[in-house]
Amino acid sequence: MKDLIATSIKYQQGALHILDQHQLPHREQWLVCDSTEVMIAMIKKLQIRGAPLIGIGASVLLAHLAEQGASTASLRTDAERLRAARPTAVNLMNCLDRMLASLDSHGTATLAHCAEQLFNEDVELCNRIATEGAALIEDGANILTHCNTGSLATAGVGTAIGVIGAAKQQGKQLHVWVDETRPLLQGGRLTTWEMDQLDVPHTLVCDNMAALLMAQGKVDMILVGADRIAANGDFANKVGTYSLAVIAHYHQVPFYVVAPYTSVDANCPNGRAIPIEQRNPAEVQGVSGSFGEVNWAPDNTPVYNPAFDVTPAKLISGWILDTGVYRPEQIAAGVLTTL
Amino acid sequence: MKDLIATSIKYQQGALHILDQHQLPHREQWLVCDSTEVMIAMIKKLQIRGAPLIGIGASVLLAHLAEQGASTASLRTDAERLRAARPTAVNLMNCLDRMLASLDSHGTATLAHCAEQLFNEDVELCNRIATEGAALIEDGANILTHCNTGSLATAGVGTAIGVIGAAKQQGKQLHVWVDETRPLLQGGRLTTWEMDQLDVPHTLVCDNMAALLMAQGKVDMILVGADRIAANGDFANKVGTYSLAVIAHYHQVPFYVVAPYTSVDANCPNGRAIPIEQRNPAEVQGVSGSFGEVNWAPDNTPVYNPAFDVTPAKLISGWILDTGVYRPEQIAAGVLTTL
Repeated sequence: MKDLIATSIKYQQGALHILDQHQLPHREQWLVCDSTEVMIAMIKKLQIRGAPLIGIGASVLLAHLAEQGASTASLRTDAERLRAARPTAVNLMNCLDRMLASLDSHGTATLAHCAEQLFNEDVELCNRIATEGAALIEDGANILTHCNTGSLATAGVGTAIGVIGAAKQQGKQLHVWVDETRPLLQGGRLTTWEMDQLDVPHTLVCDNMAALLMAQGKVDMILVGADRIAANGDFANKVGTYSLAVIAHYHQVPFYVVAPYTSVDANCPNGRAIPIEQRNPAEVQGVSGSFGEVNWAPDNTPVYNPAFDVTPAKLISGWILDTGVYRPEQIAAGVLTTL
Repeated sequence: MKDLIATSIKYQQGALHILDQHQLPHREQWLVCDSTEVMIAMIKKLQIRGAPLIGIGASVLLAHLAEQGASTASLRTDAERLRAARPTAVNLMNCLDRMLASLDSHGTATLAHCAEQLFNEDVELCNRIATEGAALIEDGANILTHCNTGSLATAGVGTAIGVIGAAKQQGKQLHVWVDETRPLLQGGRLTTWEMDQLDVPHTLVCDNMAALLMAQGKVDMILVGADRIAANGDFANKVGTYSLAVIAHYHQVPFYVVAPYTSVDANCPNGRAIPIEQRNPAEVQGVSGSFGEVNWAPDNTPVYNPAFDVTPAKLISGWILDTGVYRPEQIAAGVLTTL
C-alpha cells in the first residue's frame, strides 16, 4: 500500500500509526496498530475517533492485514468485528462494505487500492464540504461548534471545522465558541487545539453556557458534524448536539449539520432507527487523559452515559454535504435517498 | 454565641468550622475560619457555598469577631468586604444588612443573637419550603436538578433538595436526574452525595444530556435553586439553569425555582439588573478537587466563565418559596414585592 498521511493517522513503510487522541493536546503519542484487536480497543477508547476517520482507519488496517497474508475468511471476520466497534457511526459500516465488495469481486490483492481510494476520497469530500459550507459564512461571524470535526476526525480538513478553516482562508474574520463536550472533552482538548493550528480566534465554554451566549446574541450560527444522517434528515451526533439544536431553535440561531455523503444512511428511515452506543459510567464520574484518571463522584454513583443523541430534521436549518447545501424542503422531498 | 450545627458549618466552643466543599465527596476536611480574609477566600474558592449558607456563614463570622472584641468600625469594614465576595447571591447582602442594622441599633453585643436568629430562621425557611414544594411532587416522579441545593448549601435541609427529601419522607417513590454542573461539578460531587444520604435513587448525567432525557419523556419536572430572584420573577442561578429552562419549555416539562424569601431582591427590577460573577479560566480549562488539579485544554486557551445565568420569568412554571407556591399570574401581579 502507498504511504497515506493525515493529521492523526499515518500509513508509512508498511506500518499503520495512530495519533492517540485520548492523550491530546498535552501529549502527542503515535501508536502502532497492527491487529483488529488493537484497532477495536483504540476505537472504544477514542484513541482514534471521528466518524469519517474510524472508517478510513479500519479500512487501512484491513488492507494492511491483507498485505501481511491474511486469508479472505479471516478478513471477513475482522470486518464484522470492526463493524461492531462503534454502532452509531455509519461511515465505518459504509467503508467496510466497500472493502468487502472489493474483496468479493477481486480478492485480497485489491484491498490496498480500495483503502487508498477511501482515504483520498475522504480528503476530497472534506475539501468539497469546506467549499460548500464556507459560502454560507459571513464576515465577522460568531460560530458555535460542538465536539471535534476537524483534521483529527477525518483524513482531510474535517467537516464543520473544515468549513471554518476554508472561510478563514477566504479572509473572513471569524470567532468560534468551542463547547467543551463532556464527558470526553473533544471540544476542550481537540477543537481548541485545531483552532490554534488554524489561527482562528476562539473561546472555550462549558456545554451548559451555550444557551446564555445565544440569549446574549453572541452566536450567529451553529455548525456540527454527524455520525449518521437518516433518510429523513434526522441525524445522530455527539451527545449534547440535540440540546444545542433545541436551544438554537428557541433563539432562532441557524443550525447546520456538516458531513460527507458517507455519513448518510439512506436505509435508515429516521433518527429512531439509529442505535445509540452507551458507554462506561467512569467517563461521567470523572475524567481521564494524558494526566491520568480522576474521579469526583461518590463511588458507584449510577450514571447514564449515551455517547450520541439524535437531532430531528425539524430543528435543522441546512445540511452541508459535499454535494451541496440542502434546505429542509429538499430534505423533506427525499434528496438524501438520491445521493 | 450558642453552638450552631449544620451539615457543612459548625459554631462550637467559640470557633467557626467550615466543611471544605471543594474537597467533597472524597475528603471530609473541616477548616477553621477566624477572619474576614479567610471567609472571603473560602467563598471565592467555593469551600463554603450555597446562596443561603454564605449569608449565614458571613453573619456567624461577624458575630464571632464581635465576641473577640472587634470594634464597630472594623465590623462595618468587614461587612463591606464580605458583601463583595459573591456579587450575584443576594442572601449575603440581606444577611449582612440585618447584622448591620442590629449593630446600628444595639451595638456589638447583640450580633451573636442576630446571627443565631439568621441561622435558625434559615433552618425554618428550608422546612417551610420543603413542605410547600413536596405537595407538588407526584408519586413516581422523575425530577431533574442542577447544582447543589441541599443541606450543604443552607443551614437546614436545603431548597430544591429539601423538597425532594420531604417528598421522599412522605413515602413517595422518586428518582432524581443529577446534572453534573460544570465547571465546578456541584451536581456530580455534592448532589450525588446528598442523594446517597437521603437514600433517593438517582442517576448522574452530563449537563448536555438533559435535553435527550426530556425528549425521551424521562423528566417529569425540574427543580432548581436561586442566587437572586428579581421583583419580576427573573432569577439568577448556577450557570446552566437558563439552558435547562429553555429545553424544559420546548419539551413542556414543568420548571420550578425553589428558594427562601431571603433570595428575593425586591429592589432589583429584573434579571438584567443582576450582576454576574465572572470566574477564573482555569475552572473551564480543567478541573480541581480533592484529587488535585488537572488541565486538559491547550495552555492559555481563552475561556468565558460566567458563574451564573439568568432565567426569565416567562420560562418558569412556579416559584416555590417558604410562603407558598406562586404561579406566573401572581408573579406578574407583583407578589414578590409584597413578601
